[in-house]
Amino acid sequence: MKRLGFRVVERVLVLAASLLLVAQAAAQTDPLPSWNDGPAKKAIVEFVQSTTTNSNPKFVPPAERVATFDQDGTLWVEHPMYSQVMYCLDRVPALVEAKPELKKVEPFKTVMTGNREAIAKLPEQELIKILAATLTGMSVETFNAEAKKWLETAKDPRWKRPYTELTYLPMQEVLKFLRANGYKTYIVTGGGQDFVRVYSGATYGIPPEQVVGSAGGTKYGYGKDGKPFLTKEPRLLLNDNNAGKPEGIHLMIGRRPTAAFGNSTGDRQMLEYTGAGDGARLVMLVLHDDATREYAYGPALGLRDTKVGTFPQTLYDEAKKRGWTVISMKNDWKKIFAFD
Amino acid sequence: MKRLGFRVVERVLVLAASLLLVAQAAAQTDPLPSWNDGPAKKAIVEFVQSTTTNSNPKFVPPAERVATFDQDGTLWVEHPMYSQVMYCLDRVPALVEAKPELKKVEPFKTVMTGNREAIAKLPEQELIKILAATLTGMSVETFNAEAKKWLETAKDPRWKRPYTELTYLPMQEVLKFLRANGYKTYIVTGGGQDFVRVYSGATYGIPPEQVVGSAGGTKYGYGKDGKPFLTKEPRLLLNDNNAGKPEGIHLMIGRRPTAAFGNSTGDRQMLEYTGAGDGARLVMLVLHDDATREYAYGPALGLRDTKVGTFPQTLYDEAKKRGWTVISMKNDWKKIFAFD
Repeated sequence: MKRLGFRVVERVLVLAASLLLVAQAAAQTDPLPSWNDGPAKKAIVEFVQSTTTNSNPKFVPPAERVATFDQDGTLWVEHPMYSQVMYCLDRVPALVEAKPELKKVEPFKTVMTGNREAIAKLPEQELIKILAATLTGMSVETFNAEAKKWLETAKDPRWKRPYTELTYLPMQEVLKFLRANGYKTYIVTGGGQDFVRVYSGATYGIPPEQVVGSAGGTKYGYGKDGKPFLTKEPRLLLNDNNAGKPEGIHLMIGRRPTAAFGNSTGDRQMLEYTGAGDGARLVMLVLHDDATREYAYGPALGLRDTKVGTFPQTLYDEAKKRGWTVISMKNDWKKIFAFD
Repeated sequence: MKRLGFRVVERVLVLAASLLLVAQAAAQTDPLPSWNDGPAKKAIVEFVQSTTTNSNPKFVPPAERVATFDQDGTLWVEHPMYSQVMYCLDRVPALVEAKPELKKVEPFKTVMTGNREAIAKLPEQELIKILAATLTGMSVETFNAEAKKWLETAKDPRWKRPYTELTYLPMQEVLKFLRANGYKTYIVTGGGQDFVRVYSGATYGIPPEQVVGSAGGTKYGYGKDGKPFLTKEPRLLLNDNNAGKPEGIHLMIGRRPTAAFGNSTGDRQMLEYTGAGDGARLVMLVLHDDATREYAYGPALGLRDTKVGTFPQTLYDEAKKRGWTVISMKNDWKKIFAFD
């Protein structure tokens, strides 16, 4: 009994000591290993520490910890074209096969030529016709299956990899770091809500109910078997760009985020709205200034364009004025992609 | 060392034994104490057990555990009038004070007379004018503050208690039981999304992002201080009744629920949509058949009316046909309210 008793005490002590070491090691592990030390990394770490420390005046109760992320250009590559637009263009041949009368009608005629330069020049209202024709008029289940199939096979022209591998590793670390600290992470994208939901779980660990995007209506009906289903309609409910981002956040989340990440003029209002709340705030802008490892555009090129999807000098100026933190891909990120 | 060793072993054993007893006691505690034994209670308990037991063929992965609840008549009293309509009527005097020209205009004129019978007879399009005038045209923050103030003081005419105390205790137990088993509980209501969000956290433990309701648009703008804010607009984005319920669920949640609870024709499509999914399903209808403790209406009175907000015989027939479980307030519920 003596030896047994001693062994139990010994084992308990050894176990306790190991647990302590594991806990210390975990606390000391860098949550953002792909980030270089600098103001951007510091801002993220300090924000998380202060908002999750009960005694800190900047403490945010767990239920109110909401962080919103733009997707294209913030979580993954948006050049040379949004991947969802690539999807819609790739769907056109099947569409024309099903409805041969479209072959002679613009913009489908141009898309069918395969002339990339001519396709890139299609005006916005023509592009919208392509989106409507390829994203709607089918059941939600059919759409999900088609999008999933495409995502598994389509490849980005530069890296020759599936689009879902072109997410920024440092941002994936931010998503995980925030979630590990009780934040609910949301995607708030100008892209199609249903499209992004198809891969958001596997790609970002974000469930469909935490994806806010441009959304069309659906129509409830019954199949021949009497089973109800929803059909995707070309009726726009939410244009989740610009002012549509805070409006979409109010509609879908119902709280003002504590942290927001964006990269373009389409994110301006979401960043302003997040920054204008009380208490601790983390507002960050991704600057594409790495022509070698990714792309350089926006103020990195002195661009003053205000088209949606760009990051003009004016937004950079607003960031400085309002105290948002700019993330330089070139300087702040050790690695851009997991496969680097 | 011998005695110490023995004591440690003894204490560890005693502790382990007590933990085991606590665990067993917890497992044996009735999660639904306000429910009488019967098919309704049995259906809920069996659904939760089968969908959360890994080895069960009906197992549902935690991420897919979604349960949706209608509010009026399912989670709380909806008679003699939806509480949100009471709120809007109560707001009319302040509205007329701010805009005296409304005093002579219908439907405000009738509301200002205080004649309950005449007010109850106002046609739906007149009622919509009252809702639009009292729920929109102000910032989200102003609306939230006004609604909160009203909820703290307004009382139901029959029980003389705040509306938020008129929730059904058995349904509160179902919400907690489901959440304790990894289900995300959502309110899916024909009522105003913003209105319900004001009290859903304190009243049901449901955060704003899990309230799907009839929703109007908001408009992003800047105050005189340059701070951005959202103004509530009278533009309807989602009429979350009838087919609008599954459509709203797709928009806001993006998954088909595994369980759904309703009480009226406005919930029919949500119940059908939930029931038509694969795997385990729990579809329940609250039948108001207790004129003494609450109200009796719908098939309890042989009513065949199909107006939204009622539970006609046709819905009861559909429940039987599709295998939904009917909850009889009279027979299934030991207590209706926590204050009973």
